[in-house]
Amino acid sequence: MQYIAAAIAVLGAAIGAAYGNGQVISKTIESMTRQPEMSGQLRGTMFVGVALIEAVPILGVVIALILVFK
Amino acid sequence: MQYIAAAIAVLGAAIGAAYGNGQVISKTIESMTRQPEMSGQLRGTMFVGVALIEAVPILGVVIALILVFK
Amino acid sequence: MQYIAAAIAVLGAAIGAAYGNGQVISKTIESMTRQPEMSGQLRGTMFVGVALIEAVPILGVVIALILVFK
Amino acid sequence: MQYIAAAIAVLGAAIGAAYGNGQVISKTIESMTRQPEMSGQLRGTMFVGVALIEAVPILGVVIALILVFK
Amino acid sequence: MQYIAAAIAVLGAAIGAAYGNGQVISKTIESMTRQPEMSGQLRGTMFVGVALIEAVPILGVVIALILVFK
Amino acid sequence: MQYIAAAIAVLGAAIGAAYGNGQVISKTIESMTRQPEMSGQLRGTMFVGVALIEAVPILGVVIALILVFK
Amino acid sequence: MQYIAAAIAVLGAAIGAAYGNGQVISKTIESMTRQPEMSGQLRGTMFVGVALIEAVPILGVVIALILVFK
Amino acid sequence: MQYIAAAIAVLGAAIGAAYGNGQVISKTIESMTRQPEMSGQLRGTMFVGVALIEAVPILGVVIALILVFK
Amino acid sequence: MQYIAAAIAVLGAAIGAAYGNGQVISKTIESMTRQPEMSGQLRGTMFVGVALIEAVPILGVVIALILVFK
Amino acid sequence: MQYIAAAIAVLGAAIGAAYGNGQVISKTIESMTRQPEMSGQLRGTMFVGVALIEAVPILGVVIALILVFK
Amino acid sequence: MQYIAAAIAVLGAAIGAAYGNGQVISKTIESMTRQPEMSGQLRGTMFVGVALIEAVPILGVVIALILVFK
Amino acid sequence: MQYIAAAIAVLGAAIGAAYGNGQVISKTIESMTRQPEMSGQLRGTMFVGVALIEAVPILGVVIALILVFK
Amino acid sequence: MQYIAAAIAVLGAAIGAAYGNGQVISKTIESMTRQPEMSGQLRGTMFVGVALIEAVPILGVVIALILVFK
Amino acid sequence: MQYIAAAIAVLGAAIGAAYGNGQVISKTIESMTRQPEMSGQLRGTMFVGVALIEAVPILGVVIALILVFK
Repeated sequence: MQYIAAAIAVLGAAIGAAYGNGQVISKTIESMTRQPEMSGQLRGTMFVGVALIEAVPILGVVIALILVFK
Repeated sequence: MQYIAAAIAVLGAAIGAAYGNGQVISKTIESMTRQPEMSGQLRGTMFVGVALIEAVPILGVVIALILVFK
Repeated sequence: MQYIAAAIAVLGAAIGAAYGNGQVISKTIESMTRQPEMSGQLRGTMFVGVALIEAVPILGVVIALILVFK
Repeated sequence: MQYIAAAIAVLGAAIGAAYGNGQVISKTIESMTRQPEMSGQLRGTMFVGVALIEAVPILGVVIALILVFK
Repeated sequence: MQYIAAAIAVLGAAIGAAYGNGQVISKTIESMTRQPEMSGQLRGTMFVGVALIEAVPILGVVIALILVFK
Repeated sequence: MQYIAAAIAVLGAAIGAAYGNGQVISKTIESMTRQPEMSGQLRGTMFVGVALIEAVPILGVVIALILVFK
Repeated sequence: MQYIAAAIAVLGAAIGAAYGNGQVISKTIESMTRQPEMSGQLRGTMFVGVALIEAVPILGVVIALILVFK
Repeated sequence: MQYIAAAIAVLGAAIGAAYGNGQVISKTIESMTRQPEMSGQLRGTMFVGVALIEAVPILGVVIALILVFK
Repeated sequence: MQYIAAAIAVLGAAIGAAYGNGQVISKTIESMTRQPEMSGQLRGTMFVGVALIEAVPILGVVIALILVFK
Repeated sequence: MQYIAAAIAVLGAAIGAAYGNGQVISKTIESMTRQPEMSGQLRGTMFVGVALIEAVPILGVVIALILVFK
Repeated sequence: MQYIAAAIAVLGAAIGAAYGNGQVISKTIESMTRQPEMSGQLRGTMFVGVALIEAVPILGVVIALILVFK
Repeated sequence: MQYIAAAIAVLGAAIGAAYGNGQVISKTIESMTRQPEMSGQLRGTMFVGVALIEAVPILGVVIALILVFK
Repeated sequence: MQYIAAAIAVLGAAIGAAYGNGQVISKTIESMTRQPEMSGQLRGTMFVGVALIEAVPILGVVIALILVFK
Repeated sequence: MQYIAAAIAVLGAAIGAAYGNGQVISKTIESMTRQPEMSGQLRGTMFVGVALIEAVPILGVVIALILVFK
């Protein structure tokens, strides 16, 4: 039963992280095209944003790993 | 059974946090491109907003961790 | 069974809070960009709004915690 | 079984309240930006609206609490 | 079994009322911004509308309460 | 089993009535803003429309009440 | 089992009727605002349309009532 | 079991008929507003269309009635 | 079991036919309003199209009837 | 069990065929209105397209008939 | 069990093929209306595209037939 | 059980391939209409794209065939 | 049980790969039409992107094959 | 049971990665078309973004592989 739980946790983590990151990174690329002189600043905000988004999914992956090796 | 519960909790936390953060951060990046002189203020509001959004999902992860190690 | 119930409650709380907050905060950031001179007032309304939105999800988290430690 | 019932009730309350409030508050912030001189009146209508929206979800939370402590 | 039934009834009542009210109140706020001189009349229609919308969900909450205390 | 049936019936009634009424009333408020001199006529049509929409959901609530007290 | 069947039938009837009527009546109100001199004709078509839409859901309610009192 | 079958059949019939009719009738009302001189012809096409749409759902109701009284 | 099968078949037939017909007929009415001089030709194409769309759902109803009377 | 299988097959066939045909025929009617002098050619392409779309659903109906009479 | 499998396979084949073909053919008809002098070339590409789309669903029907007659 | 597995695999392959191909081919036809002088190059890219898209679904069909004849 | 697992894995791989590839390739074709002189560079980026997208689904197919032949 | 878990994990990984990558890469191609002189920088950001997106799904595939060979 704990394997199914690990799979559900990693399913949510993968879909959530990919959706949030895809939204942020594609918006960053679109914005860099409009104002090329701000690329550095936008990319910096993007890295911070990706880190903030991945915080909870990474915790989900950690919980999944704990459940797998338990 | 408590492993499945932890997985469901972390699934909701990961999807919720990633969706909310993705919306806020991508909107911030879009707004920084329109008015570069406000980047500092917008990024500040973004950090506050991300903290407010992650409050409940982090509680969900904590509940999941309690359930896993119980 | 009560662990599953706690997980369902925290799932609803996390998704609901993240969706509502994401909508309000991203709209605030968009509005601050349009009228920078109103940032203070908008951010104040945002904090009130976030508090109002999180009222019910926080109750959901409390119920989940009661169910976990019961 | 009554724990699951409480969780379902609080799930509906949290998602419903967050969706309705998010819609009303984000629309209020958008409207305050368009007509700053009406902020007071709009915020008043917003508080009345949020109270009307939260009426039923708060009843749902109350029912959930009754079910939990029964 | 009757607890689950009460939860389902209150779930539908909360989501339905919040969705309908959110739609009506946000549209009222948008309309008040466009024509401020009609705020009184619009708010009156809004109260009538909210009362009409909440009629059925309140009945659902009443049925849920009957089921809980039965 | 009849309690679950009552809950399903009232769930459909609440969501259906709230969705239909929300659509009609929000459209009425939008239309009153565009043509204020027609408010009386529009509000009259709105009341007729709300009565027509609530006909079937009220029957659903009646069936739910019959099932609860049976 | 027949109570659940009645509930499913009335659920479909309520959601279907409310969705269809909401669409027709809100479109009628929108059209009356654009061409006020046609209100009578539009309202007449609306009543015919509502009657046509409610034909099948009313049959569903009748079937539900037959199942309840059987 | 045949009661559930009748309910499923009438659920599909009610939702299908209401969706299709709602789409056709609301489009007819919108078109009558744009070209008032064609109202007769449009309403005629609407009646034919509603009859064609209701053909299959009425058969579904008939099948449901057969199943109920079997 | 064959009653449930008949209900599923007629559910698909009713929803499919109503969706397809609703799309075609509403588009026909919209087109007749734009070019009134082509009404005859459009209505002819509409009848052919409705016949083509209803071909498979009518077969589904026939299969459902076979299953009911078997 | 084979009756349920026939119902699932005919459900997919009816919804698929109605969706695809509805899309093609409504687009044809829209195009005939824009360029009336091409009606013949468009209607020819429509018949070919409908035949191509119905190929697989008709096979599904055939499989359903085989399953019913087996 | 193999009958259900055949039904699931043919359900996916019918919905997939009808969706893909409906999209391609309706786009072809729209494009032929914009540039009538390219009808031949577009219809050729349409036939190739339909053949490519139907490749996998036809394999699904073949698998379903194998399962039915096994 | 392996028949159901084959059906699920072929269901995913058919829906995936039809969705992806439908998107690519309809976009190709739209683009050929805008720039007829590029038809050759676009059709070449389309064939490469269709081949790349069908790679995984064909593998799914192969797995389904292995499961059927095992 | 491992056959069902292989089918679920290949279902996700096929739908994911087809969706992602369809989005990238159709956008490439649209872009090539707007700027024909960049076709080479765009097609190169497309191949890299398709390879990156197919990385995870191919791993899913490999896992499915391992499960089938285990 | 662990095979099903591996399949669920790889399903989430494949759909998540393909969705996120498809969004980022198609936006990059669209942006390269608008500003060809920035292709290098955009493609660099794309590679970083794809790497960030694939981080969590690759972990999901690793967990799936651990579960398969356990």
